[in-house]
This record gives sequence, C-alpha cells and structure tokens, in this order.
Amino acid sequence: MSDTALAGDRPWDSLPNGHAIASMHRKTVEVPGADWAVQMDVTPQVVNSSGAVQGGLLATLIDLVAGIALLEGPEPYDQTTTMDMHVTFHRGACVGPVLATAHVLRRGGRSASVRVEVVDLGADSLHIATGMLTFAARRSPPPDRGEGR
Amino acid sequence: MSDTALAGDRPWDSLPNGHAIASMHRKTVEVPGADWAVQMDVTPQVVNSSGAVQGGLLATLIDLVAGIALLEGPEPYDQTTTMDMHVTFHRGACVGPVLATAHVLRRGGRSASVRVEVVDLGADSLHIATGMLTFAARRSPPPDRGEGR
Amino acid sequence: MSDTALAGDRPWDSLPNGHAIASMHRKTVEVPGADWAVQMDVTPQVVNSSGAVQGGLLATLIDLVAGIALLEGPEPYDQTTTMDMHVTFHRGACVGPVLATAHVLRRGGRSASVRVEVVDLGADSLHIATGMLTFAARRSPPPDRGEGR
Amino acid sequence: MSDTALAGDRPWDSLPNGHAIASMHRKTVEVPGADWAVQMDVTPQVVNSSGAVQGGLLATLIDLVAGIALLEGPEPYDQTTTMDMHVTFHRGACVGPVLATAHVLRRGGRSASVRVEVVDLGADSLHIATGMLTFAARRSPPPDRGEGR
Repeated sequence: MSDTALAGDRPWDSLPNGHAIASMHRKTVEVPGADWAVQMDVTPQVVNSSGAVQGGLLATLIDLVAGIALLEGPEPYDQTTTMDMHVTFHRGACVGPVLATAHVLRRGGRSASVRVEVVDLGADSLHIATGMLTFAARRSPPPDRGEGR
Repeated sequence: MSDTALAGDRPWDSLPNGHAIASMHRKTVEVPGADWAVQMDVTPQVVNSSGAVQGGLLATLIDLVAGIALLEGPEPYDQTTTMDMHVTFHRGACVGPVLATAHVLRRGGRSASVRVEVVDLGADSLHIATGMLTFAARRSPPPDRGEGR
Repeated sequence: MSDTALAGDRPWDSLPNGHAIASMHRKTVEVPGADWAVQMDVTPQVVNSSGAVQGGLLATLIDLVAGIALLEGPEPYDQTTTMDMHVTFHRGACVGPVLATAHVLRRGGRSASVRVEVVDLGADSLHIATGMLTFAARRSPPPDRGEGR
Repeated sequence: MSDTALAGDRPWDSLPNGHAIASMHRKTVEVPGADWAVQMDVTPQVVNSSGAVQGGLLATLIDLVAGIALLEGPEPYDQTTTMDMHVTFHRGACVGPVLATAHVLRRGGRSASVRVEVVDLGADSLHIATGMLTFAARRSPPPDRGEGR
C-alpha cells in the first residue's frame, strides 16, 4: 500500500485531460486499521462559495475511496458498482488536507458495504462527514487453466 | 427561468479556472412541475472506466440542482448547507444528456428536503438515480427599512 | 388487489400473538398509479410521547409496503431482503390514518429499489415521510417441465 | 447507567398497554466507549418469516438508542426529532440478543448526528447493521434564575 507505485492498478490513476476528478488533488496514504485511505487538498478547484469542499465533490471522494478499498486488499473484487450512497455532512472542510478513510463492513458474494469517515487534518482532525455505501460487486470466475498453457 | 439570464445570482455560474464542477457541461432547463432542472452532457470528463457518469459526480449534479431549487423559486432561502444526501443508483448513465429534476418536499424555517430524479434523455429517458437531500437552510431577516425614513 | 382476499400470500398476514407488527392496525388499499399501498391508524400503540407515529415504526410500515410491492404485482419476486433503507421524516403523523404508497423504481435480476411516500390522510394528506429502499431480490428458477409431468 | 433506575427520565420507559415497542424486550447496558447501548432479545414477536429480526423493527431499535443517547450523557438535549435515518443491513439477526451501540458524532445547536452499530451477541458478535441518523434537537433555554434571588 503506497501512494506512488501502483499506477494502472486503480481506475482513477489515469484520467482523460480535464476530467472532473483530475481537479481533485489526491494521494493514497496508509492509515493503520483502515482498508484504504486517501488525502485530498482543499483547493479553489473543489470548494463552494463558502470556502468549504463542495458536498458532492466530498461524496465523490468518499465514493472513490470506498470503491478502491474493495478492489484492493484482502479478497479483492474485480468490479464494483455503487448502488446506494448515504453521506451525512457534520461540518464544512475548510482547511485541509482532508483524509477519507474506508472500512469495509461486509464482503459478500455479490454485494459489499463500506463506511467512510472524513476528517479535516488541518483543523485538528475535525470530523467532516460519514459515508455509508453499498456496492454490487463481483469477482471474476477463476481463469480456466486447462487450455494447455 | 432560463439558462442564461441570471448570471451571478446562482453560486455555480462563475467558477475559478479548473474547478471540478466546471468540467461538468450543464445548462438549466425548464421542466413543468419541477422546482428546478439541469441537463448535463455525458462527456469523457465525467465518466468512469465503464463509460457511465461517475457516481460521485452524479451526486454532485444532484446536490447542485437540489440546492439551487431552494435558492430560487417561491419562498427562496438565502443560504443552504447540505446535511444529508442519499442517492440510489438505478442504472448507469452512458448516453446523455442526463436530466436532473428537483422537487422540494418541505420548506421549513430552518431546514428543507428535496428529492431529485435523474434520467438519461439519450437512452429513452431511462431512470438513472433518485436522490433525497436534507439541507440546513435560512432566510435573511427582513431588512430593516426604518433607517432614514 | 384487495385488502381481504389474499390471506396467506403475504408474509405479514399471519403473525404470532403479541408480534410488534400486530400492534400496527393496517389494511391494504388500492391507489391508482401505485404498486402497493397500506393504510395504518394512528393509535396509542404506535405513537411517541409527542403523539406522532414513532419514527422507527413508520420505517417499519415503509419497509412492509415496499417489500410487499415486490412480492405482488408484475414480475413478482419470490424472496426479498432489505439491504438499504433511507427515510426522511418531513413532519409528524399525528391524526391518521397514514397512507404509505410504494413505487417500484427498478426490478433487476438480483436487486430492486422502491420509493415509498407517506401522507397523513386525516391532516389534509400532509406529506409525512419519503423512504428509499434497496432490496436483494430473487425469483425462483422456472420449474423444470421436462420430466414428463 | 441501568435499565431500572431512571424511570420517567426516558421516553420509552413507560408505554401504553400493547404498544408495538413494548413487544421488543430491551434493556439498557453499559458499553465502554459508547454513548448509549441497548440489548434486545430475538423473540418470535420481532422476527420475520425467515426468523431474523424484521428490518423495520431493527430500525426502530436503532432510532430509540440514537435518540436516548442525545437525551442522556454530556450536554443532553431536551427534545429530539428524527429527520433522516439511513440503515444498511449487513446480515440477518437470528440468534440474539442483539446489541445496538450509539456513537454521537456531532452535537450542534439545533441538530445532531448519531451512528449506531448493531451486532448479534449470540452469533459471535456478527455485524448486523449500521445506522446513521440526523436529529433536529434543542435544549431548553437556561432557566431564569433572577426571580427573587
């Protein structure tokens, strides 16, 4: 788990020019006890007129972190699709960077659920938001190794 | 109600260069029976690796439309803050444009709730997502008109 | 669709003595345009200390109505399990009866989503709550008709 | 902290005969690190046809525990009203007792948010559900101490 090495492994490492998510300055970080964690800077490119991270963009960060947590780590899935997303916004994220930490609560055969907590590291780790997401998720069938190779 | 006339009235009409939300090609449209409605194109700048609008960015669109519905129209609020956002994703939005339609369900003194439905106009108006949002909302106190009269 | 005929077809028609749900005085009603609808009286057995239907019990009603809507009607499922439930409470239900109306938004192969609206009929159909539920759902495999029977 | 001593202080200690919530055999328990916790038995009076606690009744338990956590403990509120409730059901609760543990995430001037986790103690503390609730909440104005002192 590192914030540099795995280019190409994750769906959001390479993005077309001008992609909305490319405007979000992120890096993967290691957080003990978490299944995945990403930091994002609070830049003019992601805030609303009050100077806090726009709620939908924070939801985007939460969605990314939760999804990657299912694609990496133990018993990884090969594909995930968000079915349900619930975010409670406790306070505005105005300083940054924000840290989004994913905890996989259930890894089922066809669906999975993930909780994500977001804090503002620059504001004494103020608790910003809690997300709960349910994903449709599948693992590839084991590759057929019988073809003589 | 138009997509051109009210520049400056709404918080997302002018954005700093490179803002994530500026990557979302949107325009306000008029939909009978709706409190507000916005169309967004399905461009390479907002899709995931499956070619569908990324879930968090769809949540961002839903948040924008719901918030503007409270700032415009009857009994408008002066400020809104998203407290809770729930989005159920029914299907992927792959063709576009998508149409997000807001219906204000409650306009309270200090909070308000809005439902948003999203369809993919290019896919025979396929139902894409349903959002339910609760906002903290306030109206300015009526201006004191007694000064100097 | 009736409130009398299908005893035994629906899981909540017969309940053990003293079951919590038996305290909720309900009846199925027909509502044009809805996939299922149930009325419930506002009795002392379901209200909180403010005299409004307790929020969790309203969520229980919402869950029942949504689940039955998937077991009845077109393309019925054979089994459903609630995965995600979100309820926004707009106002208290104090008069009654309340009417909960289910609208199935998606009937997928393995999951389904349902929206439920609740109004207080005795209070000029005041809008009480909106529920969004996602279910894991399955249909029985078609019976094998090839065995010569 | 006990399930007997504070009769009258909490809204669910005395219920009219036959109240739906009276069918839920509950007791308050002390859990280190939690803001409030309640155990409930898995009896025939609260299960569905699969033998698991009915989802809405589990939501009812979650709502109760979250609400009491705000009425007790530090900086207690005098009145709370559930505005938004989201529950993700991870697995069925079939053995019991279940333990619902509330964690207050934000105590604001007019609203508060609470997370509740439910485990099945009889099934090796299997994780059953996660709830996130937002309440409108108020404290009484401080009593006027100027009268005659």
